[in-house]
Amino acid sequence: MFVNRRNVTIEWGDCDPAGIVFYPRYFAMFDASTAALFAAALGYSKYEMLKRFDIVGFPIVDTRATFHVPSRFGDVIGIESQASAFNRSSFEVVHRVFRSGEVLAIEASEKRVWAARHPTDPERIKGQTLPPEIVARLSGS
Amino acid sequence: MFVNRRNVTIEWGDCDPAGIVFYPRYFAMFDASTAALFAAALGYSKYEMLKRFDIVGFPIVDTRATFHVPSRFGDVIGIESQASAFNRSSFEVVHRVFRSGEVLAIEASEKRVWAARHPTDPERIKGQTLPPEIVARLSGS
Amino acid sequence: MFVNRRNVTIEWGDCDPAGIVFYPRYFAMFDASTAALFAAALGYSKYEMLKRFDIVGFPIVDTRATFHVPSRFGDVIGIESQASAFNRSSFEVVHRVFRSGEVLAIEASEKRVWAARHPTDPERIKGQTLPPEIVARLSGS
Amino acid sequence: MFVNRRNVTIEWGDCDPAGIVFYPRYFAMFDASTAALFAAALGYSKYEMLKRFDIVGFPIVDTRATFHVPSRFGDVIGIESQASAFNRSSFEVVHRVFRSGEVLAIEASEKRVWAARHPTDPERIKGQTLPPEIVARLSGS
Repeated sequence: MFVNRRNVTIEWGDCDPAGIVFYPRYFAMFDASTAALFAAALGYSKYEMLKRFDIVGFPIVDTRATFHVPSRFGDVIGIESQASAFNRSSFEVVHRVFRSGEVLAIEASEKRVWAARHPTDPERIKGQTLPPEIVARLSGS
Repeated sequence: MFVNRRNVTIEWGDCDPAGIVFYPRYFAMFDASTAALFAAALGYSKYEMLKRFDIVGFPIVDTRATFHVPSRFGDVIGIESQASAFNRSSFEVVHRVFRSGEVLAIEASEKRVWAARHPTDPERIKGQTLPPEIVARLSGS
Repeated sequence: MFVNRRNVTIEWGDCDPAGIVFYPRYFAMFDASTAALFAAALGYSKYEMLKRFDIVGFPIVDTRATFHVPSRFGDVIGIESQASAFNRSSFEVVHRVFRSGEVLAIEASEKRVWAARHPTDPERIKGQTLPPEIVARLSGS
Repeated sequence: MFVNRRNVTIEWGDCDPAGIVFYPRYFAMFDASTAALFAAALGYSKYEMLKRFDIVGFPIVDTRATFHVPSRFGDVIGIESQASAFNRSSFEVVHRVFRSGEVLAIEASEKRVWAARHPTDPERIKGQTLPPEIVARLSGS
């Protein structure tokens, strides 16, 4: 699989009164990491991707995270992301967070739907078949 | 088990360009829901609880969420929370989100550690035995 | 002017390592307070308002806040909001935050544009004349 | 004055249903930009700075921002930050946001207090005289 790695600096505002990252912030980082994975694999931004494939996004349907080591403001974490499975209209991504280079701090996984506006009700969204190009690029093939 | 239910109004700023809740915001709501569960079961605030038991918080070690139905700004969701397991120095909580009264929109679970400052290194935190009073109150006994 | 007051509980996740509210969170509360002001004055939600008037929102063009007293998690603050001026396609709102009932903790003001999709470029937004009904309701007349 | 510039990628989760940045997110970016300004001027992180000078942070007492041009997810904005005034126990910083290289998108200013724990009440914070070293480094002298 195609792997993308990016570094994120933990900011003061990411942390809670215990001085460590407020965990919902990690999910915001993962959401950006999935967008970065797609951008790196496809060669263009998520903004461009939504327009090219006429989708509204890839909303999450399931996610899980296990937190081994906390981080605090000033830390620079590395987030390694890759697709782990493809279904008809959904896909799965795993994220691994490393602290101080080699320490595995967090393991997370997520399942997302490739979603377009519902054809008859613009208020709703509807899963679409995952384009073969997307699967090919994320597979690294 | 003792169950706490609270209503949360989805705000404009909780939502993303697809018009639905940006999922990391749900985890912020769940974090507040666990605090509200404890406050309701104990009869005093999380702030007071941290002082009484000399802990720094109950950081998350594992969480999982399955999203069945999206919500958008203006929706009022109900979040039902209860403890689901107790271990020596950790506990588990489940949250169920209902939309439009009865529709089960999200199911989430989390495991947290009852954590104090490390006795010799104030930079670190350390799990503590869960006080029997906490277990009793959350058990509804 | 029509005044709306709402209470907000400061959550653990709203606070930073100093144990007080991370100030960007106040702006999220103010954004929700302006939406609540409109909803209270109009009698329907912001979601409904956007549809009725065919606008995309009321993005901010200027804001200022002075912070007199910090708040911490567990505090319940009162936010009092009211329109303070109306222009052709923009309006101004002031928010006053009270802590412990009577202590004035924050004073904030904001100017927003009543904005629709640009008629020829859907990527852009464009100010629209503020509907008289909106002005009348927010004026409390 | 010493000037620091950093680039920030606007993420999907920074944006609201109108597809543009939810403005409280800009204040989170400014908070991180002030920390980055100090780190660049001093040569060490905010985390290190708090320990060296025994302070709890530099909480905001006043801020103002004028938004000229909106940004949307996928945009890379440049944030230029510099100190603009020094008082006994407070200082002022201005941030200028540029979009697409040269377009001035936002102008913001803020006043912060150099704050330590209150000597007799650890629940409170108290302004401290700004260290000459801080003033000198931020002045670029």
